[in-house]
Amino acid sequence: MHDQLDTIRDLAKKTDSKILMVVLDGVGGLPMTVNGDSELAAAQTPNLDALAAQSQLGQIELVGAGITPGSGPGHLSLFGYDPLRYVVGRGALSAVGIGVKLEAGDVAVRGNFATLGENRIVLDRRAGRPSDEKNADIVAQLRAALPSLDGTPVEIYTESEHRFVVVFRAAGGAPLGANLSDVDPQATGVQPMTAQAHDEASARTAALVNAFVARAEATLAAEPQVNGVLFRGYSDVPRFPSFAEAYGLRAACIASYPMYKGLASLVGMDVLAVEGHEDALDGKVQALTENWAKYDFFYFHVKKTDSTGEDGDFAAKVKKIELFDALLPQLLALNPDVLAIVGDHSTPSKLATHSWHPVPLLIRSEYGRRDVATRYTEDEAQKGSLGLRRGTDVMPLLMANALKLNKYGA
Amino acid sequence: MHDQLDTIRDLAKKTDSKILMVVLDGVGGLPMTVNGDSELAAAQTPNLDALAAQSQLGQIELVGAGITPGSGPGHLSLFGYDPLRYVVGRGALSAVGIGVKLEAGDVAVRGNFATLGENRIVLDRRAGRPSDEKNADIVAQLRAALPSLDGTPVEIYTESEHRFVVVFRAAGGAPLGANLSDVDPQATGVQPMTAQAHDEASARTAALVNAFVARAEATLAAEPQVNGVLFRGYSDVPRFPSFAEAYGLRAACIASYPMYKGLASLVGMDVLAVEGHEDALDGKVQALTENWAKYDFFYFHVKKTDSTGEDGDFAAKVKKIELFDALLPQLLALNPDVLAIVGDHSTPSKLATHSWHPVPLLIRSEYGRRDVATRYTEDEAQKGSLGLRRGTDVMPLLMANALKLNKYGA
Repeated sequence: MHDQLDTIRDLAKKTDSKILMVVLDGVGGLPMTVNGDSELAAAQTPNLDALAAQSQLGQIELVGAGITPGSGPGHLSLFGYDPLRYVVGRGALSAVGIGVKLEAGDVAVRGNFATLGENRIVLDRRAGRPSDEKNADIVAQLRAALPSLDGTPVEIYTESEHRFVVVFRAAGGAPLGANLSDVDPQATGVQPMTAQAHDEASARTAALVNAFVARAEATLAAEPQVNGVLFRGYSDVPRFPSFAEAYGLRAACIASYPMYKGLASLVGMDVLAVEGHEDALDGKVQALTENWAKYDFFYFHVKKTDSTGEDGDFAAKVKKIELFDALLPQLLALNPDVLAIVGDHSTPSKLATHSWHPVPLLIRSEYGRRDVATRYTEDEAQKGSLGLRRGTDVMPLLMANALKLNKYGA
Repeated sequence: MHDQLDTIRDLAKKTDSKILMVVLDGVGGLPMTVNGDSELAAAQTPNLDALAAQSQLGQIELVGAGITPGSGPGHLSLFGYDPLRYVVGRGALSAVGIGVKLEAGDVAVRGNFATLGENRIVLDRRAGRPSDEKNADIVAQLRAALPSLDGTPVEIYTESEHRFVVVFRAAGGAPLGANLSDVDPQATGVQPMTAQAHDEASARTAALVNAFVARAEATLAAEPQVNGVLFRGYSDVPRFPSFAEAYGLRAACIASYPMYKGLASLVGMDVLAVEGHEDALDGKVQALTENWAKYDFFYFHVKKTDSTGEDGDFAAKVKKIELFDALLPQLLALNPDVLAIVGDHSTPSKLATHSWHPVPLLIRSEYGRRDVATRYTEDEAQKGSLGLRRGTDVMPLLMANALKLNKYGA
């Protein structure tokens, strides 16, 4: 299938121009009452306002009409990969999110530690939510007991509390399938289930998973609380054309949360080190500034606009938007040839969760149409010259504005 | 092919929220002179105006740019079925429109009664437009003579004047194909044509059609005017994922004209009884109110906005819009969680026929963006927050606004 990405790859050319894509996670919002202000409209954003007055605005739908994107599909869409075609499972996201490099043919699996009672009955699907230290201790025991299974390399990683990740490596052999049933019964008072393959390529994976469960229970038999494992969500690894292949871009990721770094590495971005804790905006600006000369494309992620929306805290989300506004002059000082500000989905405080509403897109370049939109808000974006578009249109627009695309046809 | 409907089906969840979709048939219009008022703009609609001020507006293209939808494709698009993929032939539409339940493998055919002269020469392709009573009498003669053909059950239904419908039933046997040539020569002074199959599955259908023609002529030999049959338009029966399968919705249809009821039944809606004649708006409101508790989704059809447009009667169409406006408070009193007002196509009085112009869409829910559109008109819809979209986006948007869709991906 010749998709949009193939067309762009055929047209892409290398130039010295620089693109900065700022993703304000979950930035799109809603008014709390009919026709009231959204979070973006309520925020005092003098720098964003001044920028919007010189920019083109539009609205972006990440996956499709009415569809609420998870962060994975939302970002993939922004990066130009059709999220209905490039599906990254939770296991692969978790693995890459903690810095594990996956290869084609591997399978990554999300696990929960559980408490099992007599006759393997599940008493607690989260093993009493152990501390991260306890989690690491258990993972160390399992690593020692389970370096491989039946010749297949097995890697076990701690995530947090009751969560861990297992990677079964194809290691150059036949690819492992990821089409099998869960071990997690999603209920207490019953035994863990036996994984069953739904296709031939997954038969070996099912055998590995079931052997892992048995070996883990044997290894953890003396543990009072963390003595079982439940698996749910198996992912094989989609083959992504990298940013270098697809766009001819040397691309860098500036993010502080694991999943975003993982997504960026899946598409071949260099993940830059960021100093500081949590959103670490100062550390991100520092990383951007220090590496400005080295890359053509920067993905700059701001997380807290989403977290505050998820908390349903309208005022806090407004504050995080204003915090970004205060930082914006430092980004502008680098004078990117193309600057985009966009979200990976909406997270209205009113819903306290991701939503299907389009997100505002701002593009500043030398080559924009006159545009009546005067603020980076949902209302103004509706009037903008870029219209309502799919997320996969963003990268082609940025490449074009950076004069990095040849003409199509003669 | 994994299409939008599959994605929505995978995300749909059952909730208590209720969706009311009002289809104002052919409601989109045109000004009679450049920059004049359209029918919607000319109408006095205080209730619609008040509703629009609290709602989101946009424009809907049912099939594609420049494409004028028939009522079938227009409605299918609103119901979420890509009308370029789910093709319902005129024969099947006619059959379901008169209440005939079709099964996969059946073929429905539209017939005209004709007047044949010596040597089977077609003298009148509409048999002098017989009365409906005469039509019924002829159909009764054919039913008696043709209960089956070569073991295949044959059903014959009166439609009106010279029109009738024949259903050949697969009856559990091999599916009948619908890929064959017409009997209707579309000219007088020539003989009816012999149907010829264009593929293997249609060979049996062609034999049935030709046998039907011969048997009908023999049966009607003594009739002076209605003594021949012409077939044109063969339809097999597309397999639709039902509203229950696709959306998890218990859906009801409130319409009074056969074709709309037929379309709704094809997608698995319950067709509610409506008291009254013609458009029967009071009866429709009564049916809606009485059944409000029993369903999650209501399709509420208003026909006269189209008929008056088809008549080229601008003032009459304005009046029918105002008539709906007067009824609107009774719909609002039910307090649907999501209310949509939309058309299945435009029927501008200026053209006196269906047209390709987008139709205005209005959605009211708790979760709408601020929207500058203040009336349900073509002009205001252009400013609305929902943008210009395909008809198949309507159902996903309604499902999302009803909070009936899970997140896509993690």
